[in-house]
Amino acid sequence: MSLRTSTPRADGFFMPAEWAPQSQVWTLWPERPDSWRAGALPAQAAFLEVIRAIARFEPVTVGASRDQFQNASQALAEADNVRVIELSNDDVWMRDCGPTFLIDGKGGLAAVDWEFNAWGGHHGGLYPNWDLDNQVAQKVAQLERVPRYATPEFVLEGGSIHVDGEGTLITTAECLLHPNRNPQLSQAEIERYLRDYLAVNTIIWLPEGMYNDETDGHVDNFCCFTRPGEVLLCWTDDESDPNYSRCRSALAVLDSSRDARGRQLVVHKIPIPAPVYAMLESEGGALGQLPDEDGQPERLAASYVNFLIVNGGIIVPGFDDPQDSVALTLLQELFPEREVVMVPGREILLGGGNIHCITQQQPRP
Amino acid sequence: MSLRTSTPRADGFFMPAEWAPQSQVWTLWPERPDSWRAGALPAQAAFLEVIRAIARFEPVTVGASRDQFQNASQALAEADNVRVIELSNDDVWMRDCGPTFLIDGKGGLAAVDWEFNAWGGHHGGLYPNWDLDNQVAQKVAQLERVPRYATPEFVLEGGSIHVDGEGTLITTAECLLHPNRNPQLSQAEIERYLRDYLAVNTIIWLPEGMYNDETDGHVDNFCCFTRPGEVLLCWTDDESDPNYSRCRSALAVLDSSRDARGRQLVVHKIPIPAPVYAMLESEGGALGQLPDEDGQPERLAASYVNFLIVNGGIIVPGFDDPQDSVALTLLQELFPEREVVMVPGREILLGGGNIHCITQQQPRP
Repeated sequence: MSLRTSTPRADGFFMPAEWAPQSQVWTLWPERPDSWRAGALPAQAAFLEVIRAIARFEPVTVGASRDQFQNASQALAEADNVRVIELSNDDVWMRDCGPTFLIDGKGGLAAVDWEFNAWGGHHGGLYPNWDLDNQVAQKVAQLERVPRYATPEFVLEGGSIHVDGEGTLITTAECLLHPNRNPQLSQAEIERYLRDYLAVNTIIWLPEGMYNDETDGHVDNFCCFTRPGEVLLCWTDDESDPNYSRCRSALAVLDSSRDARGRQLVVHKIPIPAPVYAMLESEGGALGQLPDEDGQPERLAASYVNFLIVNGGIIVPGFDDPQDSVALTLLQELFPEREVVMVPGREILLGGGNIHCITQQQPRP
Repeated sequence: MSLRTSTPRADGFFMPAEWAPQSQVWTLWPERPDSWRAGALPAQAAFLEVIRAIARFEPVTVGASRDQFQNASQALAEADNVRVIELSNDDVWMRDCGPTFLIDGKGGLAAVDWEFNAWGGHHGGLYPNWDLDNQVAQKVAQLERVPRYATPEFVLEGGSIHVDGEGTLITTAECLLHPNRNPQLSQAEIERYLRDYLAVNTIIWLPEGMYNDETDGHVDNFCCFTRPGEVLLCWTDDESDPNYSRCRSALAVLDSSRDARGRQLVVHKIPIPAPVYAMLESEGGALGQLPDEDGQPERLAASYVNFLIVNGGIIVPGFDDPQDSVALTLLQELFPEREVVMVPGREILLGGGNIHCITQQQPRP
């Protein structure tokens, strides 16, 4: 299938907002023992809940390694809206290693295949190596027979950006300007890639993402668009929470920004759940989930913003927290025409992300 | 995706003829060193010619192992009508390990997932093990999101049958009644499977297929339908050719048969190319291509009948033989509305089959 050597912008493609109509959602199947405890069985159960929740609204494709294909297929045998396919990977984060789909508004679909370095390569990346992850976008593009635009000189993860589909992109400087992604590029050169490959015109730079997010502050765990001109931001009024200053800094930027259409942004605030901690070894934690070297349980970057928009629905993680119902109510108000479905998010969070991180929507052109 | 527990016949599905409109053709990518000489490079070049020939007429999907994915993708990077996907396999014979697609005449598509034992399992099968091959049909069905009917108690290869799409099936007793396939089943019980899973009514049993065909005489290397009521049969008038009696026995059966619509069959004869022999080790032959224990070069089952019908075309193997032009002319007469394209068939034959064996058409419902 064709690799395009022009840019999406030159060819009339742009990234639609997540609320645009979708043809399916992509995800991957967990198995990696240093990411997932207990043989990944609890994680697989958690993924099954997410997959089944999405499949109520639209088709799902689950990529599994050769070794896990039959296990995943059997677990999903009764799910008519779900296909399991072979798709080798280094871990499950389809948002970050998968393609970013584009449309041209004339029935065309395309995919951007960003370079992927496992959130930092040999300078803070989360696992070596990432060769299989880095092929996922190419494989998905071929599976769907869509033209592919590749950026072998530019590292980006899908979770580090959000767009409104009308020319505005939101991201964090903490991630996109981190020297472990594209140290050879200036901020202006990074913006050039975003403009050329996503066809955005206005880029809003939040300083940071969530505290202790091992992705270096992906925006998709912290702040997202809910409709043109409106964003949802994680929020805490607890001054002792390390997220306190992060939230206020982000709000200051948002309050002083205009989107690509010149609108002042409406900012909705969603509470952060009470601190969620990594597991102790005695609890069966996997390597990536264990306490820090000082023996203190590590705080995980739990967030309700890590939800996925699907056709007619919102799939949001819950944390067995009193704030769960607050988040549910707020999301239902913000998305009155969609059914908000909460599924348990703790087990996926133990692996380092949540529902938005493990999925990638494919727009229906 | 759903596994159906009824039978295709009960659900209104049937196997269409190969000349029915197709949505794509499936094939696999060669790599196995004991099937393919010289690191499989010559085989890959031969497959590329077949793939490109088919892609002139319709889309192609090429399944490659994880290790061969990039190699196959790069070789086919310029082929816009071809996608390469991950599809683990034990060897390339998509006709035999892949699904048999069915339609219902009302827009529905389904797949039969026959049990596969590598042409005989531990009693003459061609390689152990065949676990990955045996999953190919299931994987293809999931990839295409089509319901699947499985026959875990019944071994069949797609190359051992041909249908006219109007209720008639042709096969060989040499293969289907061989004790290394379904020793527990009587001929009547085997017919019951064919009737239930392909919705055929009349089964024509040729005694044998081609001489020394390591599939135990697959019909797709010997005799096929060219249109309803007409078949094409391999033929030789050379009494010293071990195929001589096989051709005559088949003709006798065909001449005395009626198809499911009650028609007397018209039999066209196509010459067999001059004997093609396996390679010597000194020529770089792979294990499966070497001479017999007695040191005599092994005759391969070369046949022009091993062609594939595609939308608007016929893809037929050539053997650098004077009969090539005879076969071309005859096929063009038999398929006047299709373009007959001949591609080199010797390298694929060295692996044990030919163009029909390495492909599987997916009908457009």
